[in-house]
Amino acid sequence: MTVRMIIDTDTASDDAVALAMALRHPGVRVLAITTVAGNCSVEQATRNALFTTELCESDVPVHQGAAGPLLVPASFATWFHGQDGLGDQGYPPPLRRREATDAITALVATIRANPGCTVVTLGPLTNVVMALRQAPDLVDCVERCVVMGGTVNAVGNVTPAAEFNLWFDPHAARAVFSSGLPIELAPWEICRGDAGLNRAEQEALRGLNTPLGHFFVDCNSTAMEAARRQSGTERMELPDPAAMAIALDKEAVVTRSTRHYVEIEAGSPLTRGMSVVDSLNVTGNPPNVEVIRAMDVDRFKQMIFEAAGG
Amino acid sequence: MTVRMIIDTDTASDDAVALAMALRHPGVRVLAITTVAGNCSVEQATRNALFTTELCESDVPVHQGAAGPLLVPASFATWFHGQDGLGDQGYPPPLRRREATDAITALVATIRANPGCTVVTLGPLTNVVMALRQAPDLVDCVERCVVMGGTVNAVGNVTPAAEFNLWFDPHAARAVFSSGLPIELAPWEICRGDAGLNRAEQEALRGLNTPLGHFFVDCNSTAMEAARRQSGTERMELPDPAAMAIALDKEAVVTRSTRHYVEIEAGSPLTRGMSVVDSLNVTGNPPNVEVIRAMDVDRFKQMIFEAAGG
Amino acid sequence: MTVRMIIDTDTASDDAVALAMALRHPGVRVLAITTVAGNCSVEQATRNALFTTELCESDVPVHQGAAGPLLVPASFATWFHGQDGLGDQGYPPPLRRREATDAITALVATIRANPGCTVVTLGPLTNVVMALRQAPDLVDCVERCVVMGGTVNAVGNVTPAAEFNLWFDPHAARAVFSSGLPIELAPWEICRGDAGLNRAEQEALRGLNTPLGHFFVDCNSTAMEAARRQSGTERMELPDPAAMAIALDKEAVVTRSTRHYVEIEAGSPLTRGMSVVDSLNVTGNPPNVEVIRAMDVDRFKQMIFEAAGG
Amino acid sequence: MTVRMIIDTDTASDDAVALAMALRHPGVRVLAITTVAGNCSVEQATRNALFTTELCESDVPVHQGAAGPLLVPASFATWFHGQDGLGDQGYPPPLRRREATDAITALVATIRANPGCTVVTLGPLTNVVMALRQAPDLVDCVERCVVMGGTVNAVGNVTPAAEFNLWFDPHAARAVFSSGLPIELAPWEICRGDAGLNRAEQEALRGLNTPLGHFFVDCNSTAMEAARRQSGTERMELPDPAAMAIALDKEAVVTRSTRHYVEIEAGSPLTRGMSVVDSLNVTGNPPNVEVIRAMDVDRFKQMIFEAAGG
Repeated sequence: MTVRMIIDTDTASDDAVALAMALRHPGVRVLAITTVAGNCSVEQATRNALFTTELCESDVPVHQGAAGPLLVPASFATWFHGQDGLGDQGYPPPLRRREATDAITALVATIRANPGCTVVTLGPLTNVVMALRQAPDLVDCVERCVVMGGTVNAVGNVTPAAEFNLWFDPHAARAVFSSGLPIELAPWEICRGDAGLNRAEQEALRGLNTPLGHFFVDCNSTAMEAARRQSGTERMELPDPAAMAIALDKEAVVTRSTRHYVEIEAGSPLTRGMSVVDSLNVTGNPPNVEVIRAMDVDRFKQMIFEAAGG
Repeated sequence: MTVRMIIDTDTASDDAVALAMALRHPGVRVLAITTVAGNCSVEQATRNALFTTELCESDVPVHQGAAGPLLVPASFATWFHGQDGLGDQGYPPPLRRREATDAITALVATIRANPGCTVVTLGPLTNVVMALRQAPDLVDCVERCVVMGGTVNAVGNVTPAAEFNLWFDPHAARAVFSSGLPIELAPWEICRGDAGLNRAEQEALRGLNTPLGHFFVDCNSTAMEAARRQSGTERMELPDPAAMAIALDKEAVVTRSTRHYVEIEAGSPLTRGMSVVDSLNVTGNPPNVEVIRAMDVDRFKQMIFEAAGG
Repeated sequence: MTVRMIIDTDTASDDAVALAMALRHPGVRVLAITTVAGNCSVEQATRNALFTTELCESDVPVHQGAAGPLLVPASFATWFHGQDGLGDQGYPPPLRRREATDAITALVATIRANPGCTVVTLGPLTNVVMALRQAPDLVDCVERCVVMGGTVNAVGNVTPAAEFNLWFDPHAARAVFSSGLPIELAPWEICRGDAGLNRAEQEALRGLNTPLGHFFVDCNSTAMEAARRQSGTERMELPDPAAMAIALDKEAVVTRSTRHYVEIEAGSPLTRGMSVVDSLNVTGNPPNVEVIRAMDVDRFKQMIFEAAGG
Repeated sequence: MTVRMIIDTDTASDDAVALAMALRHPGVRVLAITTVAGNCSVEQATRNALFTTELCESDVPVHQGAAGPLLVPASFATWFHGQDGLGDQGYPPPLRRREATDAITALVATIRANPGCTVVTLGPLTNVVMALRQAPDLVDCVERCVVMGGTVNAVGNVTPAAEFNLWFDPHAARAVFSSGLPIELAPWEICRGDAGLNRAEQEALRGLNTPLGHFFVDCNSTAMEAARRQSGTERMELPDPAAMAIALDKEAVVTRSTRHYVEIEAGSPLTRGMSVVDSLNVTGNPPNVEVIRAMDVDRFKQMIFEAAGG
């Protein structure tokens, strides 16, 4: 059975890989891509999403969404992903155009029209909360909501306590996590360590000699260098593709997951955007999130190669 | 020149009076009424708005909006306005129906189509912030945004620090006040003291022997009793009509206004929703709000009588 | 019967006047003066307190206390009171020395040794909370605790929401107000308007031709100028002397006081240090503070003249 | 050279073991024990500390300190340590008496009189911050301040985000961590896993057939059962003894430590008391804490046996 998927994305380097994984997957129909401010401005994210769909020869509609967080100022991560979000490789502007309808309206309409669909969020959750506030019934229409974001009792990447996507719009994250949506959380650390592509694997991707094989490595090169400076990693870490792999083939990719009560911090500057995961069940609150704890790293990488393949 | 007005309202007792003032004013065209949760549930607010338009023989479209605040749980004020928000007088259900389009979509479309329009908000600001996040350009389309809400260095009515509308959705209020919208603030205390209708004035309203004259007094009777218990007042205090009078005829009604920097508290439980007005300019921040400090009380009351008149 | 009084003070211009009022009052024995950081550094406050005692020919012990707030950085008000806290009039260093014992130890010992005593606080409440945490039994030893601080549903003087003393150490203030101490609150606005000394009254003080008459006016001249720039007042406003007048002769000075539940904001930057006074009893919490609402202004000024007199 | 040590403790089960380790260590002179509310009431903690000193045949002075946190209400952990904090084994009341001088006064005097001393904190940091505010110079008198508390990018034991000691008085913790004290942090997780005593090791402790051998196991039995219910562990986890081992013989015990910027959350209910450790140096702030990351578990256990030995 074909999975019907809607992808909300602040399209930058690793988002682009994740988009391609979905657009080129034979068992998935991507109904819409909605863009949101996060890694870069929403206008840039829209351009990057359109450009990626062109590389994938897809005509999926792209709708532009929120230009910034609900309540806090926008803090883009262009220092990480490059000024254009795609590693400043000089990619040409896209030929395709975004839709006239905005992302929130599109989310509401598309999800309502497709009960049982899968929503994958690769960026801040601003669009999602706006859609939920406008149409609370969406909660019952979504079968899976795979969220790339947060950490599980672990160090963050934008502050010591928080991961970028949830930190960028902590109020939206807080509201979405308590909304009743069936969240499967792909935390940041899932893409670290062995899950990162080492140099040989990067060369192998290029060795495919396909446009996407080169694109995957090139557009993430600036991010890889920034990650190296931050944490000393020598690998290409790809959080959004990890989330997408989980969304596309959970059975094969996820080797361990646990259900917990998760609440997002939105009140304190120090711990803003932290995903507070009750792993020891000290609160006694019922679980609201399925947390992905371990991945089959080989299968994950294989899926990237399949997406890049000829 | 006809004023084009959009009214956002959590329609209960005093909102109904304010709606009638606008709908029956010869110089105003009400383009749309949008409802929001606040005094009562948004469904009840919609019913009350529709009922009021029927009493006024108006066919203005009514669009239903947010069912609760952005981020905090809803706390209705039915203890004040009655279970049905209109004093539990047993009014029949409305015959008219609300529009299919939701309030946020309607706000975006109507404001964009009517540059130079006046927006009057009589309830929490949830719909307004959602519209602004979806369409930031609305800020430049609105000529006046008259807000009933807050207090100016004065005691609150729902907590010691805050007035109900801003308290109900403090995050929305905070965002709207910093949005750049040209806000004219009608604080709660403007309707207290002499501005309240005394017994004789209430009887005079009834004495008009019009449906609206009776409606104005009846539907506010429960609220008047609740206010009496709270603050000891013997008058019928009407905050939303005060804001509407200011919106309809500022020149005649407003006798003193001052411009200040105003910021809304959204982080602390104790001072949640407080409108912090920098009256002594100790912050040095540029003014973002025109605060109405005094009203011509006679003119205000005259406008209520005109609205109720045959 | 002689009142036994302990005065905690961040001694600057108006504190000095208040100290003199107590030291020269025939019915009062000042047991100790304890200093605290606030208007100026605690070392400067100690020097100013010692200097004032010399002017009053008093040998009351002066103990130095906390150098800053419990948890937030110190923000002195030397822009208001002058670099030396006494209007930079070039006063000589004091000859007297402070005691070896610190203020907290002195507060604990002196209050314990004097059940039924009156504590008057003219500065931030850091010393008081430290003494209470060290010796919770002090609550039962104090008969009156007169606090100069806060506002009552009114504008602040250091932020739009807060008065300086409570703002400077909001955590201490919050803890002291919920400690059970029998607080009588002299809010900032009590010293504004008619309560300020006009030019003629200032000249009359000088006309006494006493050292204290000149001192009272001179050491407050910088503060008066700062207040003029802030709020436009042409008067010399004296908050600490107002609190002291209430402490010294409540019956004659206080014309109206009401009891309310008062809680201090310590969590939010925007409303930090605000005294949230439940004037309409919307919380239903039992009163914990007697709030002074109105003073006999003539009697207040007379007390200042008596203190300055020959 | 003899180490001069001051121990601040909310004496309950594992504190007792840690106290014995210090009191019976040949190279250490314990100058004073100060008690604080935390695991149990401060009165109970004092009794437990006195009782433990008797078991160790020590006449070290015990001073009683703060009865609760600076600003939040006390929440004891008697559900974990038993009503008497020592596993409700029916231990008799101590014969020794506490000193008349309170803990804060004792901390100030003892530390000032012993520059170069080591302070070990086994409970909430209320006493420590009060001593620092009263005597800021203490910072320069302490050579090492070993703190049992917090977690390092890991799950908490009292909330999902926080460890008990720092959570109990988050404001004190926040202030102490930013005070400049040379903190060596023994986080909660250091005592988990292999560091816990398994059944065989517990039996071996009893097998020593010494009063302390039995005491160590007995008084921790209630806590062990509570930990088993919470996290499923079958071991006796001993956080305070881990910190004490680090304090007593860092060179032998600590196998890995790293220096980081650490800040404590005091503003948010959700993350209250969390030790936010900047392990990836994303803030750029200079390190203020040496974080112990790994222990020689065998050496640690050997020290416990040495303390219990005949």
